[in-house]
Amino acid sequence: MSTQSCPFARTERSTPNRVPKRVTFERDPVFAIIDEAPIVHVGFAMPNGQPFVIPTIHARKDDRLYFHGSTQSRLLQAIASGQQICCTFTFLDGIVAARSAMHHSMNYRSVVAFGTGQLVEDETERQEAFRRTVEKLIPGRWENCRQPNESEAKVTAIAALDIQEATLKVRNGPVADIESDLSGPHWAGVIPTRLSYDSPQPDSNLANDQTIPDHINNLVGGPSASRH
Amino acid sequence: MSTQSCPFARTERSTPNRVPKRVTFERDPVFAIIDEAPIVHVGFAMPNGQPFVIPTIHARKDDRLYFHGSTQSRLLQAIASGQQICCTFTFLDGIVAARSAMHHSMNYRSVVAFGTGQLVEDETERQEAFRRTVEKLIPGRWENCRQPNESEAKVTAIAALDIQEATLKVRNGPVADIESDLSGPHWAGVIPTRLSYDSPQPDSNLANDQTIPDHINNLVGGPSASRH
Repeated sequence: MSTQSCPFARTERSTPNRVPKRVTFERDPVFAIIDEAPIVHVGFAMPNGQPFVIPTIHARKDDRLYFHGSTQSRLLQAIASGQQICCTFTFLDGIVAARSAMHHSMNYRSVVAFGTGQLVEDETERQEAFRRTVEKLIPGRWENCRQPNESEAKVTAIAALDIQEATLKVRNGPVADIESDLSGPHWAGVIPTRLSYDSPQPDSNLANDQTIPDHINNLVGGPSASRH
Repeated sequence: MSTQSCPFARTERSTPNRVPKRVTFERDPVFAIIDEAPIVHVGFAMPNGQPFVIPTIHARKDDRLYFHGSTQSRLLQAIASGQQICCTFTFLDGIVAARSAMHHSMNYRSVVAFGTGQLVEDETERQEAFRRTVEKLIPGRWENCRQPNESEAKVTAIAALDIQEATLKVRNGPVADIESDLSGPHWAGVIPTRLSYDSPQPDSNLANDQTIPDHINNLVGGPSASRH
């Protein structure tokens, strides 16, 4: 069995204190969430303890996440510094309207991943990270756009973060009211939610006869759009 | 002019290093994002510097955010400790497909708020936080569900966090390709994205003749659903 197919280690920081039945450490379902999530919330702390949480775009290869940006950004600097980083990927899947105020909840899937990073200097890996980032945003896009020239590549920093532990927590399913509330007068149910992609808005500078390409239509009709 | 109508202070931690034109510190647009966002990503650091980013549900009154949960949860403990907290609220509004790989982007609105908190002990304020949390999840729900009894209230901790600074950053609008790419062969445009609410799924234990109430239908057809 390769390391890649083993679950992530269950450590003190990666084990939530609450509702253990909702938790898994298996790599495949963790990676599925990371790959489906269009954005990640990256957490880091300054030396004085001040936390920051910054939303950004990510890409993944095996246990490694890639981030891109300016070397001036706090986020890139924090990852490049090698300090501990927390990356959280969240889907809101539904609003759970229970009969009791107490049992209102949300259906969700969220991955909390811990790791440390560094700047990527190797040009081949940098190119691969650029490609994966564009492909993460829109699968099939890399071969359908003008790829970075030397000066564009030069101004873009790439940082890599190696996931040390990761935890997937899921709440799904119906309302969980207590027995004595079931006969009460209140409506109860789940309102499913999802990130939906609407019709593409072509750029005003496009030639009039340019149709929307397949890779864009696939994004709109893709897995996130048809989840429910 | 009351404090409430003043912008948040522009400090070192609340001023992004990049793209200042996308930033505002005004309270009203900051609060609009906080109130529309169904979830928040809360960041805090352990004494050893280990950062955590946890998604959760929030409610707001003026500059104060409310969080609820178990006193065992790391999140509640961190807020209750009075340490610095970062709360980030993010909407993904679109995928920006530029002709050049370099100018791919996302349309988004995100608020990064800093502050410190404490446990709420006052029973009146706790009740108000319960009410606001349920109303945040589903407007109109509080009067249409079974409100917490004494033992339910007792097991739920409420923490309050007072926002000291907050920053709203927005990217919207069309593709921003460079002139020399405009005549290229590649399609370009924006694919709008939004959080959508689908048809409510009534609980299987409901009486057959119980119709979906207005406050649930309003959520499905509400502002987030009809944004685009």
